[in-house]
Amino acid sequence: MDKLELCEANNVPLTPITFLKRASECYPTRTSIINGQTRFTWPQTYDRCCRLASSLISLNIAKNDVVSVVAPNIPAMYEMHFAVPMAGAVLNPINTRLDATSITAILRHAKPKILFIDRSFEPLAREILLLLPCENSQLNLRVIYIDEINSPRVVSPEELGYEGLIQRGEPTALLVSRMFRIQDEQDPISLNYTSGTTADPKGVVVTHRGTYLSTLSAIIGWEMGTCPVYLWTLPMFHCNGWTFTWATAARGGTNVCMRNVTAPEIYKNIEMHNVTHMCCAPTVFNILLRGNRLDLSQRSGPVHVLTGGSPPPPALVKKVQRFGFQVMHAYGLTEATGIIDTILNLLPENQQMELKARQGLGILGLAEVDIKNNETQESVPRDGKTMGEIFMKGSSIMKGYLNNPKATFEAFKHGWLNTGDVGVIHPDGHIEIKDRSKYIIISGGENISSVEVENVLYKHPKVLEAAVVAMPHPTWGETPCAFVVLQRGEDDKEDCEDKSLTRERDLINFCRDNLPHFTCPRKVVFLEELPKNGNGKILKPKLRDIAKGLVDDSKVNVTSEIVQRREDKLRVDRITSRL
Amino acid sequence: MDKLELCEANNVPLTPITFLKRASECYPTRTSIINGQTRFTWPQTYDRCCRLASSLISLNIAKNDVVSVVAPNIPAMYEMHFAVPMAGAVLNPINTRLDATSITAILRHAKPKILFIDRSFEPLAREILLLLPCENSQLNLRVIYIDEINSPRVVSPEELGYEGLIQRGEPTALLVSRMFRIQDEQDPISLNYTSGTTADPKGVVVTHRGTYLSTLSAIIGWEMGTCPVYLWTLPMFHCNGWTFTWATAARGGTNVCMRNVTAPEIYKNIEMHNVTHMCCAPTVFNILLRGNRLDLSQRSGPVHVLTGGSPPPPALVKKVQRFGFQVMHAYGLTEATGIIDTILNLLPENQQMELKARQGLGILGLAEVDIKNNETQESVPRDGKTMGEIFMKGSSIMKGYLNNPKATFEAFKHGWLNTGDVGVIHPDGHIEIKDRSKYIIISGGENISSVEVENVLYKHPKVLEAAVVAMPHPTWGETPCAFVVLQRGEDDKEDCEDKSLTRERDLINFCRDNLPHFTCPRKVVFLEELPKNGNGKILKPKLRDIAKGLVDDSKVNVTSEIVQRREDKLRVDRITSRL
Repeated sequence: MDKLELCEANNVPLTPITFLKRASECYPTRTSIINGQTRFTWPQTYDRCCRLASSLISLNIAKNDVVSVVAPNIPAMYEMHFAVPMAGAVLNPINTRLDATSITAILRHAKPKILFIDRSFEPLAREILLLLPCENSQLNLRVIYIDEINSPRVVSPEELGYEGLIQRGEPTALLVSRMFRIQDEQDPISLNYTSGTTADPKGVVVTHRGTYLSTLSAIIGWEMGTCPVYLWTLPMFHCNGWTFTWATAARGGTNVCMRNVTAPEIYKNIEMHNVTHMCCAPTVFNILLRGNRLDLSQRSGPVHVLTGGSPPPPALVKKVQRFGFQVMHAYGLTEATGIIDTILNLLPENQQMELKARQGLGILGLAEVDIKNNETQESVPRDGKTMGEIFMKGSSIMKGYLNNPKATFEAFKHGWLNTGDVGVIHPDGHIEIKDRSKYIIISGGENISSVEVENVLYKHPKVLEAAVVAMPHPTWGETPCAFVVLQRGEDDKEDCEDKSLTRERDLINFCRDNLPHFTCPRKVVFLEELPKNGNGKILKPKLRDIAKGLVDDSKVNVTSEIVQRREDKLRVDRITSRL
Repeated sequence: MDKLELCEANNVPLTPITFLKRASECYPTRTSIINGQTRFTWPQTYDRCCRLASSLISLNIAKNDVVSVVAPNIPAMYEMHFAVPMAGAVLNPINTRLDATSITAILRHAKPKILFIDRSFEPLAREILLLLPCENSQLNLRVIYIDEINSPRVVSPEELGYEGLIQRGEPTALLVSRMFRIQDEQDPISLNYTSGTTADPKGVVVTHRGTYLSTLSAIIGWEMGTCPVYLWTLPMFHCNGWTFTWATAARGGTNVCMRNVTAPEIYKNIEMHNVTHMCCAPTVFNILLRGNRLDLSQRSGPVHVLTGGSPPPPALVKKVQRFGFQVMHAYGLTEATGIIDTILNLLPENQQMELKARQGLGILGLAEVDIKNNETQESVPRDGKTMGEIFMKGSSIMKGYLNNPKATFEAFKHGWLNTGDVGVIHPDGHIEIKDRSKYIIISGGENISSVEVENVLYKHPKVLEAAVVAMPHPTWGETPCAFVVLQRGEDDKEDCEDKSLTRERDLINFCRDNLPHFTCPRKVVFLEELPKNGNGKILKPKLRDIAKGLVDDSKVNVTSEIVQRREDKLRVDRITSRL
């Protein structure tokens, strides 16, 4: 067979940027973005992105330069997912819940040339600049504010604003398209930090090819049809919104932006714009349950919800489905460029609940997913029981951690991505994530999945939220300790010790009725709120620290540190985000 | 930004072969293939393919060797789409309707090491071997027959049969998986001939990467959900069944095989196996209309039909939808590795019909689709009127034509795939294919799309099939001539010239009521059947030859050559397949 040479017509790099131009051509009248009173069409979004890209180039942004952004789910945040890589640069979306110290650590590590920051974070920006005084010039960091599009604020000519960049950008798509032609699909497109801790920041580098394939896989895995109306409940800074920043363009969808994730805002947007799809962490389910049931008679169908981050308790899924939401569970990793598997939606309801708590089938974009014994590297039997670490390989896996060869080496040991997550394979081929390996409780040599205990706690009618972590035990090494938030009305203000003990005994007995006894919590701590990070993920390391101070059967001291009052939420976010 | 090296975990070649292993793991109990009484599960199909691949390797099949196959839509044909590339070789599926001369021409050009041939084609195989006497040894061609799996036929030990290869193959998937690791995703996976003519055979080389991306795009474009039941009405030899050979594995679907595409067989299979999806040329619609309406009360929904090859007349689509089929139209090319765009399914029914006759939106896998003036290379305006040639580029485009640098060069002129198809872009971004450029009728300098005239003819209640081609005209250069097959009952046996003339006038007047007069046929020829190739595509070159002999307003001579009787169908196939 003779050797045919590739040419311009058939050797085109894979990049999600192409979805935007296609959307502008294939869906010229469809609304691309809704943000309050602001609306754009796909040709307008394409034009704005071209202009921004050309302006970035005129600011000397070059290939592989990093452009950071701190912004909520606003149109600018969406546009930058295209415009920044169109300029050849790498987008670095930063968790908006981080404090100045954590963000400064990321900036020092990522070395961006530009930091775009939403005007609402102006005090934070000032704090950041104070923390970067002498380094500022070294970093050569330019801070550019994003104002509301129709903001009455007058920006001085010397102050470069986001909208100003778009206005002065080159409108000719053709000219820009020549400029931003990606040469190598393995070039980075985004830099996503997995945590905001000051030590050892891990910046996940994902590529054009990886995000392209992840986006297609996510569309197929979720069976997202054409022209969805997508509500931005999941932060775009979170792993590029699990690649749905690009998927909505690929599907000619409408992005409904939202600054604040509250029940009234969510329901208002769903009704007003006939939302069909949204993603969120399972903790958002509790927010949804504070609203009204959707009136399905007024809609063509349920709202499809993709959830991930942590396994959703089946009882919670059941409740939220009754409210008119169709839940699919995905398991994903920043290192795997978004979601890597999803669960089938085909089984009878009772089986579905069990399956939705599992994760399911490796998505198409991944070449292989396996669960192996960490020491022998042998695949575990498909018995639904034997735990092992989840390993995967495929073109959508990250390129590595930025400037962190040690962490990169560890992540890619044995030629696979070592996820650090623990799971089992069921005989039907479904993968069930049991836990992060660091959260597995080892009691008398037996592995206990904290997630399984939590799932049982969630079935108790009085439990709103639950988290289970290891507590030291003189005999067994470790034993489970549960932290529980009760449903409102259950946590009376006039608390007394007796009542708390009765409640604790009640929950422990409930677990013993539903689980092997050695896996049941020996201690239950009642909190008003669980500590969470900016993505709504429960901060288990913090709970484990508390549990370390507790001795089995001792009186529980709910310290002032952990009883985070609701009215003190902002402070809580600042504290917890450091974890 | 530092340079991260790719590694084994994140640098995995894209190939549709991976879909099979994944299907065996993710859908271990699902039926992969049904063929009469034979059924396989996905793990069985994976095992059979591993065995066949290892047997092929033991027969000295090496990287980039060609393996040809002549077989209908049977399990072996499906399996070879995985097993042959798993052995590193290139699959060459040959049109089963071709005669020995045409097949010999392909074999001489493709130089396969093995020809697999279904036992039902044994006489054809003998004819082929007679035509390849001295070359046989030069070609080093080994012919291997495919018998029914449970065939009572005793194959002598020295005769190597398809099932024998599977039986003696290496069952250890692990061993095989080490062997068939694809090194370069740009390596060829399949060699698909666009025609069986003896002169200038064009063998389209498609790659692992191209077919992988095309498969994902086809799934997304058609919105093919998980676990479809796919009826094999479209021949797998036709552009790898528009990539659905691989897509059904990607989706964990069930392949319902079928040797003969007849109305009773189609309806029987749809009912028995609850078929959800099928592909076919629009001519198959006429076969479907010979059956009964589907009983939708007994089904969860309509059968989704993807059609292509030629634009389906809207009137025909309407009829077939009433029978319970949900039609989506795709436009594709062997050179573009299957379908390249599909049409939305969202509009009200009357608009849908018009849109379904158009083609629609470039699929995601393609980087760009454009319609340009062939001479200036400028994009045509998006006015739905200005015709131009369809150009495209993207990673799913073929690698080129095998051993045909001239044709390859022509196809890739200007850095795009030059499709030779003529179309317009509508203001809403939809592409409408007007015609193959060679079938455009140029009358007094005006372009007439033969397809548009045909669409009007199909609306006439008496018309079953219609094809319009150019006829010479002393004043206008060319003028349209229509070839029409009437509905049964309309083509009375006792034909007389008067009746024929009345009918002709009737149809011409009907066209004049619905089209600009210069685009209406000036001549209508009534046939009992239109000449078609093996894929059911109407052979317009043949009709044009006939039209050349006709002078405007002269008496039509329906020659014995073109009035192909239904009872003479086999002979017709042989003749027409040479065209």
